[in-house]
Amino acid sequence: MWMQLLNDIQNGSQKSLARCISLIENEVSGYEQLLQSLPASTVPVIGITGPPGAGKSTLVDALIEVLVQHGKKIAVLCVDPSSPFNLGALLGDRIRMSNWYNHPNVFIRSLATRGSLGGLHPKILEIADLCKAAPVDYVIVETVGVGQSEIEIAGLADATVVVLVPEAGDEVQTMKAGLMEIADVFVVNKADRPEADLFVRNLRLMLAPSFKEERFEIAIVKTTATEKKGVEELWNTIDAHLHSGHYNQRKSWLLAEKAWQLIQRRRMSDLNKEVLKKELEAEYNSGTFNLYRFVESK
Amino acid sequence: MWMQLLNDIQNGSQKSLARCISLIENEVSGYEQLLQSLPASTVPVIGITGPPGAGKSTLVDALIEVLVQHGKKIAVLCVDPSSPFNLGALLGDRIRMSNWYNHPNVFIRSLATRGSLGGLHPKILEIADLCKAAPVDYVIVETVGVGQSEIEIAGLADATVVVLVPEAGDEVQTMKAGLMEIADVFVVNKADRPEADLFVRNLRLMLAPSFKEERFEIAIVKTTATEKKGVEELWNTIDAHLHSGHYNQRKSWLLAEKAWQLIQRRRMSDLNKEVLKKELEAEYNSGTFNLYRFVESK
Repeated sequence: MWMQLLNDIQNGSQKSLARCISLIENEVSGYEQLLQSLPASTVPVIGITGPPGAGKSTLVDALIEVLVQHGKKIAVLCVDPSSPFNLGALLGDRIRMSNWYNHPNVFIRSLATRGSLGGLHPKILEIADLCKAAPVDYVIVETVGVGQSEIEIAGLADATVVVLVPEAGDEVQTMKAGLMEIADVFVVNKADRPEADLFVRNLRLMLAPSFKEERFEIAIVKTTATEKKGVEELWNTIDAHLHSGHYNQRKSWLLAEKAWQLIQRRRMSDLNKEVLKKELEAEYNSGTFNLYRFVESK
Repeated sequence: MWMQLLNDIQNGSQKSLARCISLIENEVSGYEQLLQSLPASTVPVIGITGPPGAGKSTLVDALIEVLVQHGKKIAVLCVDPSSPFNLGALLGDRIRMSNWYNHPNVFIRSLATRGSLGGLHPKILEIADLCKAAPVDYVIVETVGVGQSEIEIAGLADATVVVLVPEAGDEVQTMKAGLMEIADVFVVNKADRPEADLFVRNLRLMLAPSFKEERFEIAIVKTTATEKKGVEELWNTIDAHLHSGHYNQRKSWLLAEKAWQLIQRRRMSDLNKEVLKKELEAEYNSGTFNLYRFVESK
């Protein structure tokens, strides 16, 4: 069944891809073998992240349109945090993007983080790699940049696009230090706002130190997603990054980052936090508890 | 030597504590055994986090004063991110706090994250536990809430205080989802700003959903650290949390979180990202590379 599925996916069956994603999500036995039989692929993964309310989904929607116009095929994975703080906004996003759900060259799948604190979907790496087996030109992963996901997506995507909105200058520093370090391309969305240019200037100042670390210049693109302004330019900028020396340097780091995350999960898979909690409760009440002796025994 | 050190630390030698922290930082052989021989301790760890510029260090400085006035002994660990984006600010912080460096009841140590992306100090759990062996009433850990550290500190601290500054209402949602989930106490610092009350109201609205998850009410305290306003009240609020049913419920979760992080690090300690990178580069260029087969071999 698995090889047939993979075969159908490679032949462009969106139905098979959707089904296979569900099988991986639910860890139906055999999925590891499927992953281990995926052919080597060079399809780039484009990660789009940023704080809630930055207009990521509207931007992705506009980006899809540009790609479709260029005759590209794309798989889009939207990771919805299960956090209670922005549910409404997210539902809105999904509706906005729904006009692509039936397009033959566009595959869209929403994935819930299932409450992993500020994290990506637990199987996002695997699912993105599965999508790369389909006849697509790009895989786009959209995620709300909150907590860990900022770091995780850096290991996931060949190009990481961080979407921001114009704010007072000092706000940039307040929230973005994590994002700063993972961005390949910055998008300042809602660039029709009066403070947009000031914000872009501040952003450039913030990025300046990174030159000292011999990093390549990080591009900043202004967009107004609601009016589809700047989206074609954003596309060219992402494409340029994927053909840059910077990317070639980062490639193996990205791979190591992905491998690290997968190995870590595999080595911890025998443990369960709830069970650990119960064990610790028992030990703790025994009086002579020492955390490091406990850890040594695991 | 180690047992003598531990003995001196338990007898209140700040010099020995400082030395022992360095030994743990540098993983001098024998430090694991020391950790495994630490006596059980109930000294609470108070984590203070929040974005750069929120005035954390000024607040900690004022908090130390209140505690000293109450005749308490404290160890303070300041975790400085190695991120290039807020170095100046941090140096300023350290200077501000320097008036406590020579106080007999106050032990202060700065730790650099050594570039672990958005993370805490790699040995912060161990060092905090070591401090609990000293004759102190509280251990305070101050960290800049950026990326992962927000999540990590939740597992580290018995009481997590998140320091914010008044901003436009929608900004709260934009940046704090990660912080929302770990806070036991919110501090709205710089409460003399005109928008402070509106900000507190918005914060309460944001926190409302958490009631549905049967979480206890999260206290919000307004402070003006530069004028030492509200600090005594903050102290009482933290103390109340440490004696609350909410804390008793979370205790074993905190322990499980700490154990999980330590076990994970221990199980990955044989691996090195740089080496992994080299291996992957070799495999990748071999053509038939498959990440999941590679991971399976580790």
